[in-house]
Amino acid sequence: MYREAVAKLAAYIPGEQPPPGKILKLNTNENPYPPPPQVVDAIRSAASGPLNRYPDPLATSFRVAAADALGLPGPDWILAGNGSDEILTLLVRGFVGEGESLRLPYPSYILYRTLADIQGANWEQITFQENWELASDFSNPSDLLKLALLPNPNSPSGTVVSREKVVEIAGQLDCPLVVDEAYADFAEDNCVDLVIKHGNIFVTRTLSKSYGLAGLRFGFLVANPDVISQLAKIKDSYNCDAISIAAATAAMKCSDWLTDNCNKIIATRQRMTEELEKIGFRVTPSHANFVWCRHESMSHREIYEFLKTQQILVRYMEFGECGDGLRISVGTDEQIDALLFILRSHLS
Amino acid sequence: MYREAVAKLAAYIPGEQPPPGKILKLNTNENPYPPPPQVVDAIRSAASGPLNRYPDPLATSFRVAAADALGLPGPDWILAGNGSDEILTLLVRGFVGEGESLRLPYPSYILYRTLADIQGANWEQITFQENWELASDFSNPSDLLKLALLPNPNSPSGTVVSREKVVEIAGQLDCPLVVDEAYADFAEDNCVDLVIKHGNIFVTRTLSKSYGLAGLRFGFLVANPDVISQLAKIKDSYNCDAISIAAATAAMKCSDWLTDNCNKIIATRQRMTEELEKIGFRVTPSHANFVWCRHESMSHREIYEFLKTQQILVRYMEFGECGDGLRISVGTDEQIDALLFILRSHLS
Repeated sequence: MYREAVAKLAAYIPGEQPPPGKILKLNTNENPYPPPPQVVDAIRSAASGPLNRYPDPLATSFRVAAADALGLPGPDWILAGNGSDEILTLLVRGFVGEGESLRLPYPSYILYRTLADIQGANWEQITFQENWELASDFSNPSDLLKLALLPNPNSPSGTVVSREKVVEIAGQLDCPLVVDEAYADFAEDNCVDLVIKHGNIFVTRTLSKSYGLAGLRFGFLVANPDVISQLAKIKDSYNCDAISIAAATAAMKCSDWLTDNCNKIIATRQRMTEELEKIGFRVTPSHANFVWCRHESMSHREIYEFLKTQQILVRYMEFGECGDGLRISVGTDEQIDALLFILRSHLS
Repeated sequence: MYREAVAKLAAYIPGEQPPPGKILKLNTNENPYPPPPQVVDAIRSAASGPLNRYPDPLATSFRVAAADALGLPGPDWILAGNGSDEILTLLVRGFVGEGESLRLPYPSYILYRTLADIQGANWEQITFQENWELASDFSNPSDLLKLALLPNPNSPSGTVVSREKVVEIAGQLDCPLVVDEAYADFAEDNCVDLVIKHGNIFVTRTLSKSYGLAGLRFGFLVANPDVISQLAKIKDSYNCDAISIAAATAAMKCSDWLTDNCNKIIATRQRMTEELEKIGFRVTPSHANFVWCRHESMSHREIYEFLKTQQILVRYMEFGECGDGLRISVGTDEQIDALLFILRSHLS
């Protein structure tokens, strides 16, 4: 009855999302701080708005504010989506047909593979080199390749590919190169402006991480206006609701809040990295709101299980030949102190 | 660069959505009344919740409340979506592959065709008979047919296919029959309970119309638990946001409000039908929150254009050999009085 591609898919397993309470959640890279108060005000105000009316199908107020915040030529360079997951879904549906393929680095975001599977398309993984350098294979054009996806900063590593390298890859590929910048606000640099000069570089962003709005589901694509108008044809007509449009528009105007919040997280990340190293972890230098770490001698799975008994959730990840490790989200200073205290007492 | 199916699609033209103000909108079947106050309270309360955390991927609180409201065996018979448009998108992606086909009656909801086009699939239109009776062709099984979509009540006609007929069609088809019940709360009957006994009958619902929540984007599928779990694999992990889940959960508990609101709209629909007939319209008896009407002598396009000059938007629709007409949403009594006053003075 179902399409074969769908029937073959592994069952969806939602991430561990315990009810709010005593559990310390450092497993899904959420922002530990609440969103800007202006966003909460915008939601309250939109609650009294004309909810019986359909929302703006193109989320114009958001696009104007986002183009302004990012220094883009205009709102027609932006497509708003119900989370950047929806944007990624639209990109795969827009560019990759059944039997065609998309490319991703490995280890990275597993959703890319799932999206190819749903479409009945193929995926091609290019394994990162030892030091999380991108192998040159990533840039090889091929007839069936219709989309290349590059999370930057990457997860679980938190590492980045330089702007120069992104331009070089895009120049070699015959298809769009999507730079997934979910974590870019925590990095020193990003690729948003490259979209203007390079027709096959697209950037995706989300408000889930740096704006503290994972609960809101709002993400967007930055690409040239032709791409935006083609993908607008395949999105659901009213893909963003009136309340999230109001909230996301308000968020885009909070640049000072954003800078302060990211600086706090970056400072905690730095301290957390140093302290984890002192207790025997090798920590990959991170440009995101999490760190990827491996312990010199202890089993990662055991550390994960132990922390869980202590009401601390981190992410245990296992990547076949690439080995395993722990991905730990940057929490508040107090949360990270609690983590470090428990790790120190357990590991020493 | 784009998939051929996408490049070929006609550009998306958003419906006429003038800014709130003097325009009287009777063109998109929105509820003229605000949503239940409990929903507004739920949104305000959720605004202060942990928006930095991901929402429940399966919208459990909503599914429990909806199963209860609809008398279903349990929440696993429900899939929540970002509007029923997302549910319809998931159904097409789940069941209809490239080169396969879906079936719809004509004239009905144009989105079904677009969804087939996006998928690179085919669509088959079965034209309604003279009195909006479904032709027997609609029930013919065929190898490539993977999904049949039946809006019930239908738009633009507002007519219904009986429960007995729905069971009969489903029994003859080799594929799922999706009964799109966007407007069912305004009708005397619906097919929700048929889902329990008939494995290939699915029902879609939306909160946009009867709950006055078009701005919220919330819809759902009622189907057997196997279908729900298969489609859950292909939806975006967090397809509904924390605020809309809270709002939709609250809405499902407002059964008295729902009854009162629908009764008001049905009473206005009755009066509007009688008055339109007095001034020369033939009005199809409606089971929805709009009426389909044709004037005995005047041009429908001219009436539409005239009403627009008077700041009243209705929907002019043209269906080739099936002719044209006006679809007018049921507004408040005051709004319909204004419409009738202007029509009377123009037409007489």
